[in-house]
Amino acid sequence: MSALKIQEVTNMTNFDSDEYLQKVNRYWNAANYLSVGQLFLRDNPLLKRDLVADDVKIKPIGHWGTIASQNFMYAHLNRIIKKYDLNMFYIEGSGHGGQVMVSNSYLDGSYSEIYPKIAQNETGLQRLFKQFSFPGGVASHAAPETPGSMHEGGELGYSIAHGTGAILDNPDVIAAVEIGDGEAETGPLAASWFSNKFINPIHDGAILPMLNLNGFKISNPTILSRMSDADLTKYFEGMGWKPHFVETDGNPADYARVHKAMAKTMDEIVSEIKHIQKHARENNDDTLPQWPMLVLRSPKGWTGPKFDLDGNPIAGSFRAHQVPIPVSAGQMDHKDLLINWLKSYHPEELFNNNGSIKAEIKAMAPEGDHRMAMNPIVNGGIDPKKLDMPDPADFALKINKPGDKEAQDTEVLSNFYTEIMKRNGNSFRAFGPDETKSNKFFSMLDYGKRQWEEPIKSPNDENMAPEGRVIDSQLSEHQAEGWLEGYVLSGRHGFFASYEAFTRVIDSMLTQHYKWLRKASEQPWRHDYPSLNIMNVSHAFQQDHNGYTHQDPGMLGHLAEKGHELVNEYVPADANSLLAVMNTALQAREKINLIVASKHPRPQWFSMDEATKLVNDGLGIIPWASNDQGDPDVIFATAGTEATMESLAAIDMLHDSFPELKVRFINVIDILRLRPNNEDQDSRGLTQAEFDKYFTTDKPVIFAFHGFENTFRGLVYNRHNHNISFHGYRENGDITTPFDMRVLNELDRYHLAKDAIARTQFASQAADFEAKMDQMLQKHHDYIREYGTDIPEVQNWKWSGNLTNKLTTE
Amino acid sequence: MSALKIQEVTNMTNFDSDEYLQKVNRYWNAANYLSVGQLFLRDNPLLKRDLVADDVKIKPIGHWGTIASQNFMYAHLNRIIKKYDLNMFYIEGSGHGGQVMVSNSYLDGSYSEIYPKIAQNETGLQRLFKQFSFPGGVASHAAPETPGSMHEGGELGYSIAHGTGAILDNPDVIAAVEIGDGEAETGPLAASWFSNKFINPIHDGAILPMLNLNGFKISNPTILSRMSDADLTKYFEGMGWKPHFVETDGNPADYARVHKAMAKTMDEIVSEIKHIQKHARENNDDTLPQWPMLVLRSPKGWTGPKFDLDGNPIAGSFRAHQVPIPVSAGQMDHKDLLINWLKSYHPEELFNNNGSIKAEIKAMAPEGDHRMAMNPIVNGGIDPKKLDMPDPADFALKINKPGDKEAQDTEVLSNFYTEIMKRNGNSFRAFGPDETKSNKFFSMLDYGKRQWEEPIKSPNDENMAPEGRVIDSQLSEHQAEGWLEGYVLSGRHGFFASYEAFTRVIDSMLTQHYKWLRKASEQPWRHDYPSLNIMNVSHAFQQDHNGYTHQDPGMLGHLAEKGHELVNEYVPADANSLLAVMNTALQAREKINLIVASKHPRPQWFSMDEATKLVNDGLGIIPWASNDQGDPDVIFATAGTEATMESLAAIDMLHDSFPELKVRFINVIDILRLRPNNEDQDSRGLTQAEFDKYFTTDKPVIFAFHGFENTFRGLVYNRHNHNISFHGYRENGDITTPFDMRVLNELDRYHLAKDAIARTQFASQAADFEAKMDQMLQKHHDYIREYGTDIPEVQNWKWSGNLTNKLTTE
Repeated sequence: MSALKIQEVTNMTNFDSDEYLQKVNRYWNAANYLSVGQLFLRDNPLLKRDLVADDVKIKPIGHWGTIASQNFMYAHLNRIIKKYDLNMFYIEGSGHGGQVMVSNSYLDGSYSEIYPKIAQNETGLQRLFKQFSFPGGVASHAAPETPGSMHEGGELGYSIAHGTGAILDNPDVIAAVEIGDGEAETGPLAASWFSNKFINPIHDGAILPMLNLNGFKISNPTILSRMSDADLTKYFEGMGWKPHFVETDGNPADYARVHKAMAKTMDEIVSEIKHIQKHARENNDDTLPQWPMLVLRSPKGWTGPKFDLDGNPIAGSFRAHQVPIPVSAGQMDHKDLLINWLKSYHPEELFNNNGSIKAEIKAMAPEGDHRMAMNPIVNGGIDPKKLDMPDPADFALKINKPGDKEAQDTEVLSNFYTEIMKRNGNSFRAFGPDETKSNKFFSMLDYGKRQWEEPIKSPNDENMAPEGRVIDSQLSEHQAEGWLEGYVLSGRHGFFASYEAFTRVIDSMLTQHYKWLRKASEQPWRHDYPSLNIMNVSHAFQQDHNGYTHQDPGMLGHLAEKGHELVNEYVPADANSLLAVMNTALQAREKINLIVASKHPRPQWFSMDEATKLVNDGLGIIPWASNDQGDPDVIFATAGTEATMESLAAIDMLHDSFPELKVRFINVIDILRLRPNNEDQDSRGLTQAEFDKYFTTDKPVIFAFHGFENTFRGLVYNRHNHNISFHGYRENGDITTPFDMRVLNELDRYHLAKDAIARTQFASQAADFEAKMDQMLQKHHDYIREYGTDIPEVQNWKWSGNLTNKLTTE
Repeated sequence: MSALKIQEVTNMTNFDSDEYLQKVNRYWNAANYLSVGQLFLRDNPLLKRDLVADDVKIKPIGHWGTIASQNFMYAHLNRIIKKYDLNMFYIEGSGHGGQVMVSNSYLDGSYSEIYPKIAQNETGLQRLFKQFSFPGGVASHAAPETPGSMHEGGELGYSIAHGTGAILDNPDVIAAVEIGDGEAETGPLAASWFSNKFINPIHDGAILPMLNLNGFKISNPTILSRMSDADLTKYFEGMGWKPHFVETDGNPADYARVHKAMAKTMDEIVSEIKHIQKHARENNDDTLPQWPMLVLRSPKGWTGPKFDLDGNPIAGSFRAHQVPIPVSAGQMDHKDLLINWLKSYHPEELFNNNGSIKAEIKAMAPEGDHRMAMNPIVNGGIDPKKLDMPDPADFALKINKPGDKEAQDTEVLSNFYTEIMKRNGNSFRAFGPDETKSNKFFSMLDYGKRQWEEPIKSPNDENMAPEGRVIDSQLSEHQAEGWLEGYVLSGRHGFFASYEAFTRVIDSMLTQHYKWLRKASEQPWRHDYPSLNIMNVSHAFQQDHNGYTHQDPGMLGHLAEKGHELVNEYVPADANSLLAVMNTALQAREKINLIVASKHPRPQWFSMDEATKLVNDGLGIIPWASNDQGDPDVIFATAGTEATMESLAAIDMLHDSFPELKVRFINVIDILRLRPNNEDQDSRGLTQAEFDKYFTTDKPVIFAFHGFENTFRGLVYNRHNHNISFHGYRENGDITTPFDMRVLNELDRYHLAKDAIARTQFASQAADFEAKMDQMLQKHHDYIREYGTDIPEVQNWKWSGNLTNKLTTE
């Protein structure tokens, strides 16, 4: 950015003069004109000739209600950017009103720079208008194709979380976050006001929440708009904010006054933000400040048509929400309503005859990267860096013999994370809903600390610091994951770790992030993003102690069915596999990585080399647990810690009783490799030939995995081998023991072994074996009801190592 | 309830005397003793003999942190119930602390009434202690097996919504809603304070939120506990509540004072609630009142151990969260810590020698149905009624010829709903996040009105009334669906309707409701519940205008994979089918019904008789669109409005070009009938023989459906016929036209027809036909980019009716 040049311009301008504010008003008119034009027009963008049916869209689609107030905010944000040389970007929280960011980026020139066909001339205008909310065109939200956007107002509630995530470790940036008063009623938004407790005034930037109180949503009034200024002040002050109010009745007679009021208020807000940051930075004082925010009260549909044909109010009512007047190519009777509306903005003052924007309007926008639409933070980050990664092997467990030792996988991973934090001081963070310690990331917490700006009270506030690398002190999956999204969308790295069952709270957020990635990747001008890493720790089979409500592995199915290669799903079976997974996942780009991780002590199986190969290949035949010599009688396939342990225990028992039985053992880490390549628009899956090499075309497969069975049946529907017995999570749970969770779902060694032998040529000789399995199940059942812990046979079991594959098949 | 008798008792007692409060304190001690005993003991419940290893659980599991403050609240709620003869129940919002409701229901006798084996004697005590958080025993939350519970604190955030839903149309009831300060940080809870805007003081009951500020959650401080009383007052007053504060440092020296303070405060709260209701009811004034609420500040782990073995504080810190001292059967070195803790409650004052509870302790609890654990509202409702249902045929569209007319399915359904509302005045409600009008329930809104207690401002506040039957004026799926859950769990009926993509916001809430139903149905003493009806309107294929973010049919997969017959999934293809579905769904018990419904004008196919049979059978061969004479060349199967329309259009074109082609057309409404019976613990699916009768074992099936393909592949994995071509939602979307949404996902007539013919004996003669299909696709592509609307061939298409099946196969 050319800060020096901007400064010079600044010094010559009186930003507070009536003359300047009149120009701001004209800029606002221009943005409004463009926004209305986008709603209705296919042609004749400057109304140079009589408006005919062909000039109007056949089916105008889009929303008007939130436009003028947002354009008003945007115009005044431009003013303060220029006046104070701010590094600012815009988040549009309102659900609709995509024209706002399109119009303003067209006015500041960035739209035409990115899309040269949408030039600043009459043809460009025509194309700009036609493409909006039109097939092959642009969405009616602040979507990925919109310059300046890093947040799409499709699903509401995450604007503050996204803005906060983006300004973490970006001390010079201010996120101007527009919040619809509908959005303000959602749970995620209502909880996100607490974001202020986590923003460090020295090391992070600032967010400026701007509540857009226009009074109505789709067809209802809004709750916050019916609260008095006094009540809103209490609400926000209670949560630690300092609200500034600007209000207008929306009448043109009030325009001069409200521009002045808005300019003065925005000056005060900037002054407060600068004062807070200056004080904190000069005095190294990162005490929680009272950040300012804006409340703008204006009528919904401001500057638009006043009444509908029945005489009902449009402006100031829910009727302004969508397309407010019945004008379309097929309905031109009331075209004057549209013409008068458009002309009320005085297009002759805004555009030259060739359709270009008048210089004095253009001059109202900032320049270069100071334009909010061109701020690099919203396009992959200000200074995006790849992660400086240590070698995961340096943190690996040494495996002398498979299964010989136990470890807590996430505790091992924590050391790797700590080193990544050390190396990537301001571009790697961990997020969670107060579960970081429960999930055993001890060393990372010790080193990185939790960021927390409230006073820290020793000795009960543990591992907290005003500047921390972990943010997990709000019990809200929406917040923690929303912050991470803002952090990675602005080019930095991190992960979110939570209890598996409760990551379902953010199912839809992951869908929306997925959709963003998909559409953003289609924009050649967009830079890419680091991966979004979702760790499902405390998973279904390790939540025996917390009970049935805490048991749900369905996130795997939720993300798997979307296809298109944007999701990776990893279910590592031990600590070294988890290290190898995270080494890959953290360095991936434009992916959602779902990682199911174990936090409880579990046997360790794979050397770092084996684990790395398993992750690279996605799955592998494990020679030390196979004796099939290339031609198995039965195949055990596993995904996950419990599935792997139980299958190996089953193999042990089977081998004891049936030494002739030829077993192949396959461990799957990267679940989506199971899907046939090119199915669900995903080319990463194994080819049929590859799959057949692992799984054969007809041999019985005992497939034990972490997840619902329907998901896995779907993934392998089109495989040749349909001789698969699925053992996943069967939605059977309780307060019980760890092993009983497996028994309830028939994912335990006894059920697996019985199922396996019954599918082989030894079935007819297996009566004794099956009876023994049933006896063990009965013993288990009785024992846990007496003692509350698992039977010694299970607790003390260790892998025998008796099988060896003379002939490895890979 | 015997109100008269209670009143007499009341008059003889001085509930404000020091003596009475001392008894309250002893009652509290008893509840705390029982709660600690449940955490640790397997035997020796009264410590009559020396505590040995066998008396202690091998692995004590549970949580301590929130217990004493909840028991304190509970004791004081008992006091005001008795003093004022209240009809009250308890919701435990805190995440853990299931002992609270177990202990208190044991003290009031209800536990032993429900579970006679857990009698009020020493053996009963022993069993009570052992079973807690123990295999085969009871959960560590307020789970379905816990008397008095209608809300399980597994996933946090819904306590106020559930409480509010339960007191709607129950004017005499007060929901005492305990809210953990961790829970208060979640999005859903933060938004649920706005519930007050929707509670009618005349016709509804009251909720009494009790914020349990104990300072810490799992391992972090809580945000609200670090806010000053002044800031909390602002926060809550801003949202319209009147907070009352009670605070204690937790020291025994403060007990007498804090009991007095709590009693006085609770008296004030009851007085305010009664005053509000009396005023409203006597003056017919349903203006929004300022409801009271309680804030209780006390140390986490109050009354428990003060310091751990390292000298770190336990009480008043996060260390009190779970099991706070290291005592277990295998670790008895510090058993004195446990013994002293238990004895600090003076068990000799609480229990008789035979283990029964001393009479003066028992007398502290209310009697009969006044006991919160026995309030019928939490066990299926106070006066549960079946719905008085009109005949859906009275609202059916008359179908002269299939496809001859268009209608908006939800608009037709709206008339049915209106009549149900008329007949079931105080036991049927509709809920939604400001989408009721958008979803075309016009007549229902007109009749039923939206409930809204803020001032109603004409003419822009439409269809609003202080007493309404619809609550949709908060834009929050969490709230709307949470209210419905509370409403049906207290025995009433209703539905939640929302945009399909955004019902994913409540994925996890539906999981939790499912889990509640599953466990509740295992309790013989629990009454059953009306169904929870989730309507996915504005679905993926009707969100062309709002774009990619609004397109997601994945709820079908989310709920399908759970199995166990607790979910129905209906995808009706027209209005009469939708009527038949809702007629069934609303009358179902203990089910989650997911209904995907069309709101846009679509062709109408089925007479009411046909529709009813389709819903009863789940699916059917449609004779008027089949000419297979029992032996099809190709089978078209459909689920959903768009899939059905497009498949019929494809059949039309195929029949035109290949009149010899024998087509069978199957419409599926009840998706889960596709799953083999007894798979996923669901016996409702078609048997293999039945399935084969519909789908044959090998004929090509073109299966067009609303939903992701992986879900459907999973459902039919174990069917004989694997010659199925799946056409579902392929996660391809955009701002586009309705028909283009189908084209993008290859669910359109042209792709379907091409796919079908290529799988038949006519494949080699189909080059011209295929070329024609491709031409139409190209025409479509070009046309929508020029005009923004669908090609006339699609817009004007009507079903020909040219096919007739000479021989129906059913």
